[in-house]
Amino acid sequence: MIVTAVPVQFTRSVWETLRAETPKGAAVVSVSKGIENGTLLRPLQVVADALGERMGEDRPMGVLSGPTIAAELARCLPATMIAASEDPDLELRLQRLFTTSWLRIYTSEDVVGVEVAGAVKNVIAIAAGILDGLSAGFNAKSALLARGLAEIARLGVAMGARAETFFGIAGVGDLATSCFSPEGRNRSCGEALGKGEPLETYLKRTTSVVEGVATTRSVVDLARKLGVEMPIAEAVHAVLFEGMDPIEGIGRLMSRELKREVVG
Amino acid sequence: MIVTAVPVQFTRSVWETLRAETPKGAAVVSVSKGIENGTLLRPLQVVADALGERMGEDRPMGVLSGPTIAAELARCLPATMIAASEDPDLELRLQRLFTTSWLRIYTSEDVVGVEVAGAVKNVIAIAAGILDGLSAGFNAKSALLARGLAEIARLGVAMGARAETFFGIAGVGDLATSCFSPEGRNRSCGEALGKGEPLETYLKRTTSVVEGVATTRSVVDLARKLGVEMPIAEAVHAVLFEGMDPIEGIGRLMSRELKREVVG
Repeated sequence: MIVTAVPVQFTRSVWETLRAETPKGAAVVSVSKGIENGTLLRPLQVVADALGERMGEDRPMGVLSGPTIAAELARCLPATMIAASEDPDLELRLQRLFTTSWLRIYTSEDVVGVEVAGAVKNVIAIAAGILDGLSAGFNAKSALLARGLAEIARLGVAMGARAETFFGIAGVGDLATSCFSPEGRNRSCGEALGKGEPLETYLKRTTSVVEGVATTRSVVDLARKLGVEMPIAEAVHAVLFEGMDPIEGIGRLMSRELKREVVG
Repeated sequence: MIVTAVPVQFTRSVWETLRAETPKGAAVVSVSKGIENGTLLRPLQVVADALGERMGEDRPMGVLSGPTIAAELARCLPATMIAASEDPDLELRLQRLFTTSWLRIYTSEDVVGVEVAGAVKNVIAIAAGILDGLSAGFNAKSALLARGLAEIARLGVAMGARAETFFGIAGVGDLATSCFSPEGRNRSCGEALGKGEPLETYLKRTTSVVEGVATTRSVVDLARKLGVEMPIAEAVHAVLFEGMDPIEGIGRLMSRELKREVVG
């Protein structure tokens, strides 16, 4: 079993380099969270593509995801994850391998849903950070979480995922940690933007990869291609890449036409 | 239009007292969050019962709910709410009446779902506070939020609500604020319990009504009556009323049989 944890935008080049040394048939498990720019492929699709294989046919593939801040795992604090695979054997192997007294693993068949949830939550986390930078409060951030979850689910369902995945641990669970934990890299990036720091300045001074920035491009491309309404992702895109003022971005979200709540 | 904001366990006596003075046919809108002990009625049902009327037939009734910490509303920070009524006119009146540049009102027909979501989130918030008292971390609390949301949705659907309500602003939105805002009364109560303070001592020294405590009794009664599995609510019940140690309660949740994730 090989675990791939490379940021998505580097996954292709790493796996192309490793191609000759990758054992035939060995399972690949991804913990990467993102969508490749341009191709709009999910991490496991990128690996299969880089290996010249067909996703899910040439080897078992799976994904592990959930609310898992590394510093907390390192202290053995209680946590949960989803192990998703279309291969029932791999799903159970992952569950048995990673379960401990403090880490609880649930299984799922919905690889697409778990990968989409892990990617798009980083975009919503940037928006959550922007709200924090503007000192907008818990009411606003919780509304963002709910409306962001609806957006993620709409996109995921259009990509073939099951809606319920987004309302589980790898969906709303991971989203909640990303939006509320002060340690989150995407939330912290958004907070800097909300306080008025330009994106370039922030990315230069931070040592961590802010995956949500590149993911925002892919997500907005996907949403437009599939005809899915994603106003929060569009607002984040406008702030990151179109020079929109964060306050104006939030104002635009709040002033949309009043309507019936539609979820999923 | 009369707005009822009395804690649920006092709603019956207040409305029985007001019965003679309540104008016939005037709309009643509830912002109370809970379920009456013993009768297991929702706030609007309690009002109808206390007035000797049939719910939804003798006057328009509606509910306003969402992530709305009062101190933030008082500062005009951005927020959202759901206005739910089976009466389309009342729904729109509420939307128009309460919408401002900083408060966005969505409409819904699902009165049952919005009332159940508002009640049960207080039970989950006590559990979130227990985790905080034990310094369990964001991973654990986000997992609790996701699994708690699934429990709330299961109960709600068994009571006739629409599942999607729980994944919207009055559901997961309000739940997120209740679990993460340090100001929340139910979360704060749970935190004291997690730190080892007995419930009686905490309730004596706090000046606020901790609605989740009484609601826990009703929710567990409802779950048992309807045959709905609610392990988090059962654990909170055991800590509040059966003398279970909070650490044992959490341990019991983490050590349940490994299984496939089931949402809703």
